[in-house]
Amino acid sequence: MEIDYSNIKVIGFDADDTLWVNETYFREAEEEVGRLLSHYETPNKIDQELFKMEMKNLSTYGYGVKGFVLSMIELAIELSNGSVSNEIIGKILDIGKNMINKPIELLDGVEEVLKTLSKDYKLIVATKGDLLDQERKLEKSGLLDYFHHIEVLSEKQEANYDKLLKHLDIKPSEFLMVGNSLKSDILPLVNIGAEAIHVPFHTTWQHEKVNKKDTNGLEYKTVESLSDILNILK
Amino acid sequence: MEIDYSNIKVIGFDADDTLWVNETYFREAEEEVGRLLSHYETPNKIDQELFKMEMKNLSTYGYGVKGFVLSMIELAIELSNGSVSNEIIGKILDIGKNMINKPIELLDGVEEVLKTLSKDYKLIVATKGDLLDQERKLEKSGLLDYFHHIEVLSEKQEANYDKLLKHLDIKPSEFLMVGNSLKSDILPLVNIGAEAIHVPFHTTWQHEKVNKKDTNGLEYKTVESLSDILNILK
Repeated sequence: MEIDYSNIKVIGFDADDTLWVNETYFREAEEEVGRLLSHYETPNKIDQELFKMEMKNLSTYGYGVKGFVLSMIELAIELSNGSVSNEIIGKILDIGKNMINKPIELLDGVEEVLKTLSKDYKLIVATKGDLLDQERKLEKSGLLDYFHHIEVLSEKQEANYDKLLKHLDIKPSEFLMVGNSLKSDILPLVNIGAEAIHVPFHTTWQHEKVNKKDTNGLEYKTVESLSDILNILK
Repeated sequence: MEIDYSNIKVIGFDADDTLWVNETYFREAEEEVGRLLSHYETPNKIDQELFKMEMKNLSTYGYGVKGFVLSMIELAIELSNGSVSNEIIGKILDIGKNMINKPIELLDGVEEVLKTLSKDYKLIVATKGDLLDQERKLEKSGLLDYFHHIEVLSEKQEANYDKLLKHLDIKPSEFLMVGNSLKSDILPLVNIGAEAIHVPFHTTWQHEKVNKKDTNGLEYKTVESLSDILNILK
């Protein structure tokens, strides 16, 4: 059965790794902290322990670069048994500042897609992470004018999207979400009766991965590039 | 001339130090870091340098506890000439986690005011800071049901409030903002033609202070306690 998009009024776009490159910078930061702490552990062990530390702190720090940096510092102290140098901690602080101040690298076709769709739909950005980070990225991206506003969600679960739809004052069937994360941008939407289109990015954070069986039989489309959306919605 | 509140449709409440205690915890954290670094500097100097560090980092980190903690760590390294112990840095991390996980202490009359006003107005929370922090506080506060939604602004300047009103789809004269900060909750609103009521809190962060002359002749009300709003709006 073909999915019917004729009711759609509002399209929500995930930002990181849907509109612009992001996860790549976290991977680079992880490699860098692996080098900084190579005196104490193997890169593989550091990677694993960093992920554990992030998960331990997630309910306190949430998503975004600042919590990531605080977790890296805590890990450096822990892995070194309290002997890591101030110089290395200072370098970890610098990794974070550099991540926050990175220039924006738009993904293929983003501008054309937004320009076209903004004529017929109300477009919003729906993202996790840090509001200041995301607003700044949006401003630097030059895409600001295509969007009605930006919604920063503390989590991307069904309840958060329910609230978003209430706030937008629309029915689930009138909302389409576009994003790179099955777990955050696709599954919760399909579960509440909204539409969703998956645009995979080449790297996915471990926390965002889902089992094949969780997507079994669910009704959403996957496209290779954001530009493919124009063919689907016309 | 009496201010006319009869057009008001939406009331925005600042959260920290308007609905619940917050600034007090930052003051306590500053005292604590003063003690931790007392080996290197006087409490007064540490206080001054911490404020400078926060201002230097504000455009990168924004508001909220996580950026505050990162600035405290950077300061500890700087003031100690790169010799501060891992133990002290660990304690600074703990200060931050404790701040984030503090129980909510509602200010006087908050619940009654919201309960009463929510019958006749659409209420929203309009706050700076970290979304996860603010959502969690709102949930812990038990006040969630009185609010239509929460708006986290990256700054509280005229342009941010303009966007908020566009987003709410109302005219400035239909919006009333209530908050403890003249700089963030009152002046920008008066300047764009919206209404504002000032409810001072006993402590104000240096960054939020304004000169007397900036408020000269501006049209807004100041009340001693949030409950006084009920007399003004009825």
